Amino acid sequence: MEFIKQPMDIENRSMEIIAPHLAGLQLTDAETKVYSRMIHASGDVEYAPVIRIHPQAIAAAQTALKAGCNIYTDVEMVRTGIHKPSFHRYGGQIECLIADEKVAAMAKAEGITRSMAAMRTFGKKLNGSIVAIGNAPTALFEVLRMAEEENICPAVIIGIPVGFVGAADSKKALAENNRIPYITVEGTKGGSPIAASAINAIMYLLDNRR
Amino acid sequence: MEFIKQPMDIENRSMEIIAPHLAGLQLTDAETKVYSRMIHASGDVEYAPVIRIHPQAIAAAQTALKAGCNIYTDVEMVRTGIHKPSFHRYGGQIECLIADEKVAAMAKAEGITRSMAAMRTFGKKLNGSIVAIGNAPTALFEVLRMAEEENICPAVIIGIPVGFVGAADSKKALAENNRIPYITVEGTKGGSPIAASAINAIMYLLDNRR
Repeated sequence: MEFIKQPMDIENRSMEIIAPHLAGLQLTDAETKVYSRMIHASGDVEYAPVIRIHPQAIAAAQTALKAGCNIYTDVEMVRTGIHKPSFHRYGGQIECLIADEKVAAMAKAEGITRSMAAMRTFGKKLNGSIVAIGNAPTALFEVLRMAEEENICPAVIIGIPVGFVGAADSKKALAENNRIPYITVEGTKGGSPIAASAINAIMYLLDNRR
Repeated sequence: MEFIKQPMDIENRSMEIIAPHLAGLQLTDAETKVYSRMIHASGDVEYAPVIRIHPQAIAAAQTALKAGCNIYTDVEMVRTGIHKPSFHRYGGQIECLIADEKVAAMAKAEGITRSMAAMRTFGKKLNGSIVAIGNAPTALFEVLRMAEEENICPAVIIGIPVGFVGAADSKKALAENNRIPYITVEGTKGGSPIAASAINAIMYLLDNRR
């Protein structure tokens, strides 16, 4: 069976195939890289018209990364998907509390999701950080509530929860917030690889790697 | 902001929303569960017409799980996404060699992807196992080559690589194989959460949980 086996050949050919789907969107070069990686991670060119990148989001994420910020994720799959060799050079940590026993107990006691309890537990640690949500709308709603009611201010929110209950609404609320730069996707689609790919694209721009 | 915060309410409402999109597909009850979880993981009802489940796939996976089979994944995100409390009761392990140094060296020396070198390294261990591929078409092509040329025979292949170079072709080749039961998705879409969700759905059927 004949197929392309060289990693860089695969990547370059993928980006060539994606490029025409971004024509007419009037993206900056940096935005083009982020869109391309998100579409690459989903295998779905129909992400092109529904990705939303706040004008300051990429720069804010890069400034935070270079300052050694932490990344807080809703689920372990987002943590797993972030490219460690690129991230660890800046000195930050990636934290996820979805499997934490205290968080599970809080969630059960309050009748909320564990990822929502996790965000509440992170609290002020979210200030200046990158929040990356790839699964749970409830986690995104909670961070937006903390921003409004508790003056919590992440440097940027990568908010790409997935699904049919709350995902579209939570992402709409994120895009309507007027303080925190964000990357999101309109509608029900999303997921951990899409959230991780946006962060990876931003780090690769800093790496000047591709 | 009003939204559903109870995990089981979210899940039940999600499945209600997905159900009409499966009408007319003539699925068994077990297939309906697997389709529903895959659509739930992607937030994309357009998966409904392109999911392909071999008639023996679910039963074969359940037999293998109950016998304590291992699961071999192409990338760490698939391993992360598999629900451990359901899996670990059967005694199997989940193995992934994408970050293995010997595999990286083999890949570099041969000009192939690491996930392809990883499948080659697993070799005969794949017999009777569940192979779960959520990222790399090259890994799926390699397992199909090993099946044909080296008589390697997994119990089932969950083959849902993603992207624009090789993914659609590798999944077509999987669906055309006449020996190994499979679950796949036609076309370019796919990814680690979709692959993991198929396995989780099959385990939940065994759990009789939902």
